[in-house]
This record gives sequence, structure tokens and C-alpha cells, in this order.
Amino acid sequence: MSGKAIRIIGIDPGLRRTGWGVIDSDGARLMFVACGSVVSDDGASLGERLRQLFDGLSEVLARLSPREAAIEQTFVNRDASATLKLGQARGIAMLAPALLGLSIAEYAPNAVKKTVVGAGHGDKGQIRAMVKCLLPRAAPDSADAADALAIAITHAHSRNWAEIEARVAVARVRALP
Amino acid sequence: MSGKAIRIIGIDPGLRRTGWGVIDSDGARLMFVACGSVVSDDGASLGERLRQLFDGLSEVLARLSPREAAIEQTFVNRDASATLKLGQARGIAMLAPALLGLSIAEYAPNAVKKTVVGAGHGDKGQIRAMVKCLLPRAAPDSADAADALAIAITHAHSRNWAEIEARVAVARVRALP
Repeated sequence: MSGKAIRIIGIDPGLRRTGWGVIDSDGARLMFVACGSVVSDDGASLGERLRQLFDGLSEVLARLSPREAAIEQTFVNRDASATLKLGQARGIAMLAPALLGLSIAEYAPNAVKKTVVGAGHGDKGQIRAMVKCLLPRAAPDSADAADALAIAITHAHSRNWAEIEARVAVARVRALP
Repeated sequence: MSGKAIRIIGIDPGLRRTGWGVIDSDGARLMFVACGSVVSDDGASLGERLRQLFDGLSEVLARLSPREAAIEQTFVNRDASATLKLGQARGIAMLAPALLGLSIAEYAPNAVKKTVVGAGHGDKGQIRAMVKCLLPRAAPDSADAADALAIAITHAHSRNWAEIEARVAVARVRALP
């Protein structure tokens, strides 16, 4: 990576499991850095679970030092209780980078799908296949980690539209059945 | 306050304004310590607003050193977007005390109303009047700070049911029109 590269963390928040994915973006180039997920203990109190998510994400941020963060702009159609749970996890997922002074970009789910798959309604499997194609060295341990990488790619794309667009187009051709 | 007194913080979370109220509870006695609200800047990014709430609450916790925390168990009937916002603020409101190792009790809104007013459907005005009666020295700067004190009273009541119950009954008689 040249000095121009920017390190980006994508975060896919969830109370049970929060996925994260870190990439370096240098104009047209995307490089996989690391990905994983932070899991909270089902049996613990809500406060303790939020603390586990915060500590896990803070550790990742301290270790990998991303300069910008991106998170999905969640629109939930499930019941209010599920939305509240997600909101609590999402608050933590935004606080951890905010405390370090990182800017946090938000992207609508359709924007993520459109960037990575080329259409606003790509399914989870397609997103994972495209992430694998764009970041061959990535081996996400969960769907949430893969989604987090997709969010990071979307942010890189949004920062450097033309360059990344060309790379995504090539990857799309390669991924054709 | 004797050595047996326990200091409790009640928190009423909201993205725009999070109320807090601190009391000391020593068996039958309730003593007002302080209350207020932490306000986030409407014009700031979501990450920055969550950080403002976290910093404000963390400052209060460090300054007043409560040993237990209590928060309303929110059930929201509003739209998913409002629920998500509240969830994010609530996540922060629980993380701040959790990071300090405080236990965090959750109470349903009806439990708070029932403890303070004596019925599950007391309106906001009734709750404020009763808080004033139970904690004469309190001068909440907002409805959220008054609600936070009501939540702290509910937790004190739940810890020392019989003693506080007697005091609440006396206050109710005094508050009769």
C-alpha cells in the first residue's frame, strides 16, 4: 500500500454477533486486511453483552487502526423489540469508532448490494461470492463478517467511485457462471 | 447517610436528551443527590451525538459514583426509525455504567408508574408531583430528569420493598389535593 491508502472498517452490528471487516483502499486497489466477528454471551445481562461488544470492537480498532468507519443504515421491519435490540448494538458499534475520532459513514442496505453485486436486490449468497472475488484473501468466519467487508467496500467505492467501479466491473465478469 | 446507604442512578435514555437522577437509599430513607440531563447536538453526526451522550453520562458516573443503575425497559409503539434511535441511545446509557461494573436493573414503565404514583397509568404530571413529594430537595431541569429520578426510586423500592412502601404511602397521603 502506498502512503495514499486509506484503511476502512465496515461494521455489521447485531446484539448476538457484530461482524467487522477491515480493508485498505488505494484508488483502484482494494486490499483485504482482516475480518471477524465479536460475539456476546447469550446468558449475560444486557449491560454486560453491550460491554462485550464494545470491548471486542475497541480491541479491533486499537489493533488495526482504521481511519474511517462505515456501517449499514438499518431499516427494520421486524417487531419493535428486535429493532430496539439492534439499535442498542448499533449504538455501541458507532460509539467505539466515534470515541477514537473516526468519521462514520452510513449506507443503505440497497447501496451496499448495488455496489457489490450491481443490483439493489442481490441476495446474501451473491454478496458473499462478490466479496470473495473482490478480496480473494478474505475468509470471513461468518455472514456478518462478509457483510461488514461489503460495507467497507461500499465506502471505498463511494470515496473513489471511478476507480473502484472499474475493478468491480472486472470482478463481476470474472464471477459470471 | 449511614454506611448502609446505597447510591442509585436512574437513567431515562433518549438520543436528543438523556435524563439522569441520583439518590441515596438507606432502608426507608430516600435522599436526593443530584439530577440533570445530557443533551446531544442535533446538528452533529450520529456517532458524535452518541459520543456526547456517553461522555456526559460517564462524567456523571465518575463524579457521583453510584453503585447501582436502573433504566426503563422501553416498549415502543412508534415507527421503527424512532425505535432504532431510542435503541442506540439506550445502548449507550447501559454501556456507560456497565463499563464501570455497575449492575443495571430494568423496570417496565408500568412498574415505575405503579411504584411512584400507586397506579400503572399515572400521567407524567402525576409522576413529577410524586417525585417532588418523595424527594423535596429535587428540582429536575427536565421531564427526563424527573423520569430518571422516578426510575431510581423504583429501584430503591424494589430493593427495600417494605420500608420504601411505607414512605411512599405517607407521601401519597400528603400529596392528596
